[in-house]
Amino acid sequence: MVASLKRWVVGTPIRTEHAAHERLSRKTALAVFSSDALSSTAYATEEILLVLAAAYAAGQTAAFSKVIPVSIGIATLLVIVAISYRQTIRAYPSGGGAYIVAKDNLGTMAGLIAGASLLVDYILTVSVSIAAGVAALTSMFQGTRFYWLDDHKVALCLFFIAFIAVANLRGVRESGALFAGPTYAFLVAFIFMIAYGFVHYYANPGSIPTPLAPGQDPELKIAEGYIIQSLSIFLILGAFSNGCAALTGIEAISNGVPAFKQPEAHNASVTLTWMAALLTIMFVGTSVMAYLYNVHPHEHETVISQFARIIFHGPMGWFYYVVQITTAAILVLAANTSFADFPRLAQLLARDRFLPRQFANRGDRLVFSNGVIILAVFSGLLVTAFGGDTSRLIPLYAVGVFLSFTLSQTGMVRHWLKEGAALRRKGRIAGAHKEALNEEGVKIKVADNPVDEAEEKEEASHWKKSIVINGVGAIATFVVLVVFIATKFIHGAWVVVLLIPLLVLLFRSIHSHYVEVAKQLSTEGLEKLRPIKHEVIVPISGIHRGVISALEYAKSIAPEHVTAVYIDLDEEATRKLREKWDQWGVGVKLVVLASPYRSLVRPLLSYIDRVERRAHDDVVTVVLPEFVPARWWQNLLHNQNSLLLKGALLFKKGIVVTNVPYHLEH
Amino acid sequence: MVASLKRWVVGTPIRTEHAAHERLSRKTALAVFSSDALSSTAYATEEILLVLAAAYAAGQTAAFSKVIPVSIGIATLLVIVAISYRQTIRAYPSGGGAYIVAKDNLGTMAGLIAGASLLVDYILTVSVSIAAGVAALTSMFQGTRFYWLDDHKVALCLFFIAFIAVANLRGVRESGALFAGPTYAFLVAFIFMIAYGFVHYYANPGSIPTPLAPGQDPELKIAEGYIIQSLSIFLILGAFSNGCAALTGIEAISNGVPAFKQPEAHNASVTLTWMAALLTIMFVGTSVMAYLYNVHPHEHETVISQFARIIFHGPMGWFYYVVQITTAAILVLAANTSFADFPRLAQLLARDRFLPRQFANRGDRLVFSNGVIILAVFSGLLVTAFGGDTSRLIPLYAVGVFLSFTLSQTGMVRHWLKEGAALRRKGRIAGAHKEALNEEGVKIKVADNPVDEAEEKEEASHWKKSIVINGVGAIATFVVLVVFIATKFIHGAWVVVLLIPLLVLLFRSIHSHYVEVAKQLSTEGLEKLRPIKHEVIVPISGIHRGVISALEYAKSIAPEHVTAVYIDLDEEATRKLREKWDQWGVGVKLVVLASPYRSLVRPLLSYIDRVERRAHDDVVTVVLPEFVPARWWQNLLHNQNSLLLKGALLFKKGIVVTNVPYHLEH
Repeated sequence: MVASLKRWVVGTPIRTEHAAHERLSRKTALAVFSSDALSSTAYATEEILLVLAAAYAAGQTAAFSKVIPVSIGIATLLVIVAISYRQTIRAYPSGGGAYIVAKDNLGTMAGLIAGASLLVDYILTVSVSIAAGVAALTSMFQGTRFYWLDDHKVALCLFFIAFIAVANLRGVRESGALFAGPTYAFLVAFIFMIAYGFVHYYANPGSIPTPLAPGQDPELKIAEGYIIQSLSIFLILGAFSNGCAALTGIEAISNGVPAFKQPEAHNASVTLTWMAALLTIMFVGTSVMAYLYNVHPHEHETVISQFARIIFHGPMGWFYYVVQITTAAILVLAANTSFADFPRLAQLLARDRFLPRQFANRGDRLVFSNGVIILAVFSGLLVTAFGGDTSRLIPLYAVGVFLSFTLSQTGMVRHWLKEGAALRRKGRIAGAHKEALNEEGVKIKVADNPVDEAEEKEEASHWKKSIVINGVGAIATFVVLVVFIATKFIHGAWVVVLLIPLLVLLFRSIHSHYVEVAKQLSTEGLEKLRPIKHEVIVPISGIHRGVISALEYAKSIAPEHVTAVYIDLDEEATRKLREKWDQWGVGVKLVVLASPYRSLVRPLLSYIDRVERRAHDDVVTVVLPEFVPARWWQNLLHNQNSLLLKGALLFKKGIVVTNVPYHLEH
Repeated sequence: MVASLKRWVVGTPIRTEHAAHERLSRKTALAVFSSDALSSTAYATEEILLVLAAAYAAGQTAAFSKVIPVSIGIATLLVIVAISYRQTIRAYPSGGGAYIVAKDNLGTMAGLIAGASLLVDYILTVSVSIAAGVAALTSMFQGTRFYWLDDHKVALCLFFIAFIAVANLRGVRESGALFAGPTYAFLVAFIFMIAYGFVHYYANPGSIPTPLAPGQDPELKIAEGYIIQSLSIFLILGAFSNGCAALTGIEAISNGVPAFKQPEAHNASVTLTWMAALLTIMFVGTSVMAYLYNVHPHEHETVISQFARIIFHGPMGWFYYVVQITTAAILVLAANTSFADFPRLAQLLARDRFLPRQFANRGDRLVFSNGVIILAVFSGLLVTAFGGDTSRLIPLYAVGVFLSFTLSQTGMVRHWLKEGAALRRKGRIAGAHKEALNEEGVKIKVADNPVDEAEEKEEASHWKKSIVINGVGAIATFVVLVVFIATKFIHGAWVVVLLIPLLVLLFRSIHSHYVEVAKQLSTEGLEKLRPIKHEVIVPISGIHRGVISALEYAKSIAPEHVTAVYIDLDEEATRKLREKWDQWGVGVKLVVLASPYRSLVRPLLSYIDRVERRAHDDVVTVVLPEFVPARWWQNLLHNQNSLLLKGALLFKKGIVVTNVPYHLEH
């Protein structure tokens, strides 16, 4: 019954050899890998405005104009990070996630920190994206008769998470077919919206709404945890930190290089450039539009929804819905990418014995099902705890992201240093050879010298340039990380700052358990075992066919070393048993144990203890006669003594337990 | 952990030989056995008034005066039943419950019907008594600042039920010490109340409250299911049926004869007479008082509470609280008697194989714990379903009681008929002997004739008189049963009318299951078993110490018939295993199974199937290597494959499963 329910939800199993490996063209790869990054434009601008609102509420009417410099700052960071990741693509054509890059170059500990950061990041990506997607939908219903959906954000979030989780348990692929439509629709709709906004702004200068004065807007929303205050460098940095959510997901392409068509690294590089360019345009464009149109962050409607409502009206009114729906769709897709990434990373960690090995099992549909389930549960808990509000989740978000950026970029610096050292060694040999030639005073081109000078020069200059690029990336992301923690610590970042070391501790203790088990189970040093000598105990509840077949079985193991044990609960019954024993005891010794407290299990266990102590190296086997009713509910009509005993024996060291079933009919 | 929680709630185990058998004097026996019967005076009068209220509300101001004839009718019935039960005491000095009497004299079916009726009756006794006890308490709080307790009747009821259940699981005894205090306090308080009411009535004629006219009393409560209507014979019979709740518990003494001091039957008889007399006085007295003082049934206060409030005031005001508290206390004791009776009857039924045998197990404290738990659960469900309202439970109550009365009395008639037949046979022999003497014309007293004429006469007249008494009892209770069902069927009696046959069906199907099992397990006709030939399968997940010791164990059972089975999930791992097998396979044959769907269990099961089909009469044993981590939570870090496999093998016929544990350290 449970099995057929599972079939219905998850689908029939897929054979192992059907695991497909689609190769993606640049266009589809852009759709597949960039939904996470691009979708963050749906909320990044709003998150900046939410912090600036604290100063606006304090009466500084120009506070919101700071969204422009802050956005440009973030866009600059974005370009730096994107350029850095192009280096990673070059160096790790087989896929360079932060866990692998950090572990390879900075050691296991750094790898684990990156792994923990990423796991946390993936969970938050799901929560934030789904919350933002739901906000896009509920914004659309403001002013309609479905406005009340706004009160059920958490339920809507949980519904979407469950939906995506089931789709992933069924083994939805990161296929172009699925991603291309929504991603390109969103791109087109969003870019059109920004362009239309520009044109509309200059065409209808009168249509720009006058902003409500500070204190006159009851709907004005300020970022959670911020009190009304004047503009300060700290507030601006807070706005900047919030906006850094725009960078999340930018690393996706460098993780997925092997999925590209040949030449993989080149295609991935080009795609990353395109994605960064689009992301910059869309994010900065949104911020500029929000500024031009005086859109303020509101409680029940997103900034983008407000802006789109202003510019799309009359015959263009329908386009508002296009924007909202494509926004919601790409946010759901963004969550979906975490459902591919989290289980994959969990599997890597499990394979390296840092997470329970169950994460490395492929389910019926070839999916790492346990990872999918755990991700759904934790992201669901998060959304519930934070009331399905994107802005309350943001302070937790970027810690993991920027920590993994920093570790990954630092790892790359180390990578190039190692490569440089290798090149220098090679170069020195080649140089020595040349010098020797020079000493002879003759300049000959040696044909079998494999070192092409030009190529060598290029390689040498390349690794140096790479160190600079990744070094800048590492420093920039590290500085942002520090700024982020400093500005967001009390707003929630502390949770993640605490959680990551705890996760690392967990990874390490899991690892040491597995190492210890492997050591204990190792055949290393195992000597030839002596032949086994048996001591067999058969607990009996009376004499019946089930008991007799168990006795026969026991005798077949150790003809001379079988003891039947009976618990005396009732004098009369015991007397009868003794009488029958001569006929049916098949020559086995009978031991009757007293049980003053009417317990069956305790006297038996202490008897087994005694036998075991006496037995030294002999193997003690308890043979349990067990009759199995024809129907499961008939078990209710029988004492579950053999079950109880089995449970109790589970914790006894070195006891072998054998069930000899006697199956009843009807 | 669970064990120590259980210790704390239930207490430490008691040794079997400590089962004490207290013998009760008449005075303590009256306390122990009559709490159920006497306590019903707390609600019986009110239940009559509730029905009459339907006519009062219709404008018939004299309707409540009918409480007097109805109560006298019930008292008459009470006397008949009490006299009948004196016969049972005589005939069954070892305790004659309805189940035993009906089964002995009318056959198993009648016994089962009586048994089912009694079980239902006991559950309802708990529910009704606790609900009435809680009503006595909440009435007391009317007009105080604890009036809101009235809205939490169900919670209070559940609390008391849980309290009594735990006390019984701890093995509270039906001891004089426990019962005597509250029972005699209640007796004294109640009888004093009635007597004081009488005196008060004639001393202060002005103090009688004028009854509110029909329609002017917003608090007036009418029995559930009754519409406002004129007095009719049907309404009177309904009131009579409701009042019959007063008779419940009257059979308790006849069940408990062996607990009396010697001469048991005589002492029991005397006690029964006392109980019946007290019950009659208290019940009729209450009805008369309710009539004299114009007390009408109300929603939030019991009739007795209202009456006691009227008469006890000024310096006697404190006595009101004495009445309410002793009433609540005896009602809790009444529920407690069911907690002794239900498990005892369930044990009798289980012993006769009509209920699961678990009901016959004595728990740690020598109590039939399962019966206690089941009773608490069902009575708790009932109180909850009926909102803790006594009057809504009453229509379900008396069906079981009067059905068991009728069966018991009919059984007694049959008993006396059989005894009469036996006497007549004896008498005929004696008579023939005497006639022979008469023919000789000589009247001699034959010394060795054991038949004493006077004694014989007395015996003969006794069994005839007994037939009449029990016959009248049987007819009376049967008529009341019919009246009850006719008047209360739609008000809830149908539930019990339906439930009793269903229970009987359940008893019978449980019985036939046990009979079938006994037949199948019987050693009858069992021939000498042939020596066992083994076929042993060892599923392995790789090569480690745990696997090797399992292989060694398997070889010790059947050196030549062991097969190790490995599931191929990964080519590389399989290749490595094959390589290691030569060194560590201890000469055992290795079978590698393909698993296209990555399942471990399914290919193994079908392999075992194939082996079993090939094996014919050989015994197939699956030896499961199992490593047991040192701490339970470490299980989370390991695939539970051997557990899964064990579960799956449970449903395979004829497979012996052996666990060879390998215990890990730390």
